[in-house]
Amino acid sequence: MDSLDLSLPGPELTVALCDVESVSGNERALADLVEAALRDVPHLAVDRDGDAVVARTSLGRAERVVLAGHIDTVPLGGNLPCRVEGGRIHGCGTTDMKSGVAVQLRLAAHLAEPNRDVTYVFYDHEEVEADKNGLGRIARNSPDWLAGDFAVLMEPTNATVEGGCQGTMRADVVLRGHRAHSARSWLGSNAVHAAGEVLRRLEAYEAERVEIDGLVYREGLNAVGITGGVAGNVVPDECRVSINYRFAPSRSEGEAADVVRKVLEGYDVEVLDSAPGAPPGLSHPAAAAFVAMVGREPQPKFGWTDVARFSALGVPAVNYGPGDPSVAHQREEYCDVAPILECEERMLAWLS
Amino acid sequence: MDSLDLSLPGPELTVALCDVESVSGNERALADLVEAALRDVPHLAVDRDGDAVVARTSLGRAERVVLAGHIDTVPLGGNLPCRVEGGRIHGCGTTDMKSGVAVQLRLAAHLAEPNRDVTYVFYDHEEVEADKNGLGRIARNSPDWLAGDFAVLMEPTNATVEGGCQGTMRADVVLRGHRAHSARSWLGSNAVHAAGEVLRRLEAYEAERVEIDGLVYREGLNAVGITGGVAGNVVPDECRVSINYRFAPSRSEGEAADVVRKVLEGYDVEVLDSAPGAPPGLSHPAAAAFVAMVGREPQPKFGWTDVARFSALGVPAVNYGPGDPSVAHQREEYCDVAPILECEERMLAWLS
Repeated sequence: MDSLDLSLPGPELTVALCDVESVSGNERALADLVEAALRDVPHLAVDRDGDAVVARTSLGRAERVVLAGHIDTVPLGGNLPCRVEGGRIHGCGTTDMKSGVAVQLRLAAHLAEPNRDVTYVFYDHEEVEADKNGLGRIARNSPDWLAGDFAVLMEPTNATVEGGCQGTMRADVVLRGHRAHSARSWLGSNAVHAAGEVLRRLEAYEAERVEIDGLVYREGLNAVGITGGVAGNVVPDECRVSINYRFAPSRSEGEAADVVRKVLEGYDVEVLDSAPGAPPGLSHPAAAAFVAMVGREPQPKFGWTDVARFSALGVPAVNYGPGDPSVAHQREEYCDVAPILECEERMLAWLS
Repeated sequence: MDSLDLSLPGPELTVALCDVESVSGNERALADLVEAALRDVPHLAVDRDGDAVVARTSLGRAERVVLAGHIDTVPLGGNLPCRVEGGRIHGCGTTDMKSGVAVQLRLAAHLAEPNRDVTYVFYDHEEVEADKNGLGRIARNSPDWLAGDFAVLMEPTNATVEGGCQGTMRADVVLRGHRAHSARSWLGSNAVHAAGEVLRRLEAYEAERVEIDGLVYREGLNAVGITGGVAGNVVPDECRVSINYRFAPSRSEGEAADVVRKVLEGYDVEVLDSAPGAPPGLSHPAAAAFVAMVGREPQPKFGWTDVARFSALGVPAVNYGPGDPSVAHQREEYCDVAPILECEERMLAWLS
């Protein structure tokens, strides 16, 4: 393809975007097409950082909103080019999240005079390690490009507003004992046995439900892995319990670590890494207007998403996109035509 | 070496045996030498099965004792040929167990008219998988070759009688749950958490001490391994606890399985394999005379050894040999000269 035709309706534009393969690390061709198409739009100023493209209106409006989406996908599963059948587009990236990107591009091309200034962010490397994330890179290199009063991340949400996101923390508890031949086990101290109490406490822990802006964030504290054992005839001297804590966006990372340490008091808890959540920010006027326009009851977002990067920059953010998250990352990924049209229509109404 | 000189003193014979490398699977050359040397002894009838050699007196004595030892070793560690220094022989196989084999060969050559008929068994493949074990092969092919009233396995025991051996059983408990994204953990059921109660019961279990023939066998029931976990963001749907039960030789394998099942009642216990123990048989007259001759307090054997193969054939058996078990399988393996001479002297006294 030589160029992107932004006059195509959203579903056709989704197909065009999907058929330019852009598995993480291979976004260059699509980023070039997006950049070229946006540079042709007279009311936008365009910047680029690596394979991320940022376009902005500068109309001096009282508020600025940011619409963001990633242009990369998970690896293909023999599911390109797209196949359109009965109002449904099948193919890699359809739901996650080139249908959302298509809505962004349609708005960018056609909203010459939005009622709020708009920043359109198209970024790379969302589906891989966090340190490669293109939105994170822009936040480090040019945080002013992301400035705004409110942000919408167009990840798949079935066209419902999902507010903020929970934080996530990985921690390990390592139990130590003394090795011994299992035929003389009393000479040793069994580290796997010692893990029993750790697991019992995790099982007994009642995760909290925290209400923010009318959304209830339901937390979770889980052992997501356990390993221990030397050989079939050896009392093991080490056992590692891997823990994942999903915490409400009202807690800081430090407060989250305190919760884990309190539950596992007396044990050596090693926090490996964490990412703070993002409050939904639905009390902001732009957000309230957005929710009213969408016309559906907003939901809390449980999984960690890039909205947290906006939150870290002081920009309240929600998730809202046409795709169905339950088919993301699957060979059978698809996106229906109807929500693509609906999302574009609602956002146009909100910004006109 | 063309032939084994059975007139050499025990320590020198040990060196000669060790310097013929016989790592498991490579016993042929040493078995040939042992067979040829024994065929030269007029009072012995010699049989061979693979790389195992069996020699017997047939004097019509009231009792028959079996002296057995394996001729293979663990892999070399740059520790051959032997080095003799200050009354200590260093090298692969010195303690485990060519010093014991040397004592067997010395007795075989020099006890023309023992007070009990004697069967000398030299076998292959002890240091590898149980199904290759030469003693097991003889027990299957020619169990009559191993017939006797009492057996001595000349494994390293620091010249102390170690009676019988405990049984061993491997079992797995598999906990099952339901997978879910850890951000929505209430939709799943955590199998690793469920393992907590299994570990707690194993930790709380007080292993029994069972006295047989004056020896106290101390049991042990241990988790020797645990694995569970799908990914850092997934509630795990399976957790496997691997268990090893070392049980007193008074229990059958079925009784041992009952113990494990009772401790873990309500859980799905899968017995993977087991090997019965061997009672010490010290009440047998030949055994009592042997213990008296050794002149040291007999000890229970905790680890599983080939004495259990004799026990399975109805032959009470003990471990008794000149080596130090704590240096077996080590690069620094050695055997002192003094216990080699002591073992030969005591056994000569017992059988003369």
